[in-house]
Amino acid sequence: MRKKILIGQAGGPTAVINASLAAFVEELSHLHHISYIVNGYEGLANNNIVNGTDALHDQIIQHRNVPGACLGSGRYPSDETAIKKSLKTIMDRNVDVLVMIGGNGTMAALAQIEQLARENKYKLQVIGIPKTVDNDLGGTDHAPGFASAASYVAQSCVDNSRDLMAMNNFEQVRIIETMGRNSGWLAAASGFFTQHVSEGPHYIGLPEKSFDLEEFLEVVKSSIDKYGYCLAVVSEGVRLPNGLSRSKEVNGREVLGGVAETLKCIIEEGMGVNVRAETLGINQRCLSLDSSSIDFQEAEQCGTFAAKLLQNNITGVMVSFSRGEDSLNYMNLIDVPLRDVLAAGERKLPDEFIKDLPKYYKWLSPLIAKNHMVYPTPIIKGDVYAET
Amino acid sequence: MRKKILIGQAGGPTAVINASLAAFVEELSHLHHISYIVNGYEGLANNNIVNGTDALHDQIIQHRNVPGACLGSGRYPSDETAIKKSLKTIMDRNVDVLVMIGGNGTMAALAQIEQLARENKYKLQVIGIPKTVDNDLGGTDHAPGFASAASYVAQSCVDNSRDLMAMNNFEQVRIIETMGRNSGWLAAASGFFTQHVSEGPHYIGLPEKSFDLEEFLEVVKSSIDKYGYCLAVVSEGVRLPNGLSRSKEVNGREVLGGVAETLKCIIEEGMGVNVRAETLGINQRCLSLDSSSIDFQEAEQCGTFAAKLLQNNITGVMVSFSRGEDSLNYMNLIDVPLRDVLAAGERKLPDEFIKDLPKYYKWLSPLIAKNHMVYPTPIIKGDVYAET
Repeated sequence: MRKKILIGQAGGPTAVINASLAAFVEELSHLHHISYIVNGYEGLANNNIVNGTDALHDQIIQHRNVPGACLGSGRYPSDETAIKKSLKTIMDRNVDVLVMIGGNGTMAALAQIEQLARENKYKLQVIGIPKTVDNDLGGTDHAPGFASAASYVAQSCVDNSRDLMAMNNFEQVRIIETMGRNSGWLAAASGFFTQHVSEGPHYIGLPEKSFDLEEFLEVVKSSIDKYGYCLAVVSEGVRLPNGLSRSKEVNGREVLGGVAETLKCIIEEGMGVNVRAETLGINQRCLSLDSSSIDFQEAEQCGTFAAKLLQNNITGVMVSFSRGEDSLNYMNLIDVPLRDVLAAGERKLPDEFIKDLPKYYKWLSPLIAKNHMVYPTPIIKGDVYAET
Repeated sequence: MRKKILIGQAGGPTAVINASLAAFVEELSHLHHISYIVNGYEGLANNNIVNGTDALHDQIIQHRNVPGACLGSGRYPSDETAIKKSLKTIMDRNVDVLVMIGGNGTMAALAQIEQLARENKYKLQVIGIPKTVDNDLGGTDHAPGFASAASYVAQSCVDNSRDLMAMNNFEQVRIIETMGRNSGWLAAASGFFTQHVSEGPHYIGLPEKSFDLEEFLEVVKSSIDKYGYCLAVVSEGVRLPNGLSRSKEVNGREVLGGVAETLKCIIEEGMGVNVRAETLGINQRCLSLDSSSIDFQEAEQCGTFAAKLLQNNITGVMVSFSRGEDSLNYMNLIDVPLRDVLAAGERKLPDEFIKDLPKYYKWLSPLIAKNHMVYPTPIIKGDVYAET
């Protein structure tokens, strides 16, 4: 049976989200009719759909390695009205299958649409393809997009460390702020490439832990004493005490950030040292230079696996990675019910990793290509030659 | 004759400054005695010198591809006292040759030390090796460090553009702030990888031009009308009118920045659109992922050429690139008198490039490796399918 498929991308783009789309299209465009949703759920609710021609399929496949979401993505509140309008688009167009590539919010909306279709006795197959840089998506070991972002964070930190140790007569503290929303996966990845203790990061602030200002200041002070500088990493989701937080709202969605800048002011006032606040910014989710090759492959595998689920008439599921029990390195592709994804909720960095970062880095290592050079021992420590 | 050499690194590090040092050491460590200055001019003034052993030479050579300045660098005001103390270090140690790797300030201090040595009838050979990410160093076509930074800026902009076009129902304007101090070379490089006019940057703010707020707002508005979003790039050195500038002083040195953040506030207040200010930050000068391979080679060539000048007893000069008259692609290594470097002053982006960016990109192209993928035509324009 030739199915009518609608596919879209939702939420913040990643460096590899187009790879999932391209692989899916390549697999199915000759078997079924695919139409594309412009700008994610907003386009679905507002019937902003583009008919898939051979030329368009080809153009999408050409976007395989391009960052950003080539169909348009964005944020859109999935309230009751939006869900109803989305189903109307689907029913008016006699759509058989809805496929969305996205994170937690995307999967929640997908489940609501499926539910409403069922209540309306409309037969709809729904499939979710995972995507997140924050790794906060439940129901899967990890999701495409995260590894590229984690690798970028880790490389930025070790390179910033080498820069900072050279500049410590001008700048003693550098605070690097990462993405991650309410989960610390990205911030904690900052030390992944560290080979020498003096490289740091000497402090990692995670949203999962309550922030202790005194402890933080103590680490900064002792690192300066020991190395001549301090490299600190904080997640955008760290909640500062006493209303110091600078998060704000844009279109009803909380936009995090400003933790590094706030801590910079606190340190400069209290310690009389120079501090730089560095926000790694959108490059974490879009810079194509560091897209992990494994991440790309996995993003493609997710698209291909979604095509297989579609062919097998599986519905109400998200594509998911399950790690082989016998080997950390072996990833199985499976499907998990959307209700399990939702039940899992926003995924946090587990305690076992927070307490044991090397254990986390072992978990992370099959996801990140080993293209990082091993840096030699630093030569200068503060203002003295560091004897090796 | 076996010479006593002192070598140091000064100013902000780059991704390739260690390559110049490594090449120099590799060339001469078996012929002369090399000692190393810790933390640039501060170390020279304060007699903070490390004796060069075979083990240390090897360790330095291992830093060839590592970002940061492995000897320690930093900022230090070269006032009369510092210059006198520097010469004292040199004379007390019977140093024959002083070699410094750095930018404008480094070369100025080098010339002052040479002058003072001459007044004291102390025979001192001085050689400068160029380094800058801002490309504001006079007396040379360009300097190592710049190409890697320019390439990073250009890649960040084209990737941010793909991200922004996917997010335009959430964020309509993104303002990217680059380094460059008072010169626009880095900011202007932002469009180097652009293949499609919709990618932008739709506006580039340069320190060489006076900032026209009305013109800027007009470009932002018309880009949003045309594409659904606007990607603007501003140099940290752009001077905003009416005291809006947010530059500040750290240790007597003006630290630029904050232009993007200020413009963000102005647009959000005036236009009712969402704006993100992105500062590309220290990764511009340290991220090893995008160090242009040509930049690395040139940094090494500068170190090797400095060794040759030393062997030939040339003094009072800086290593310099001169572009072949008959071919844009051919770079000659020459030496230029330090007084000519100083006379040239802070190097600005010339008018011919400001008025004709494609001409600038032609000039830039032999410095940047051609590893950028050609991105296909964007699929979505605002909220409609962009027919090709």
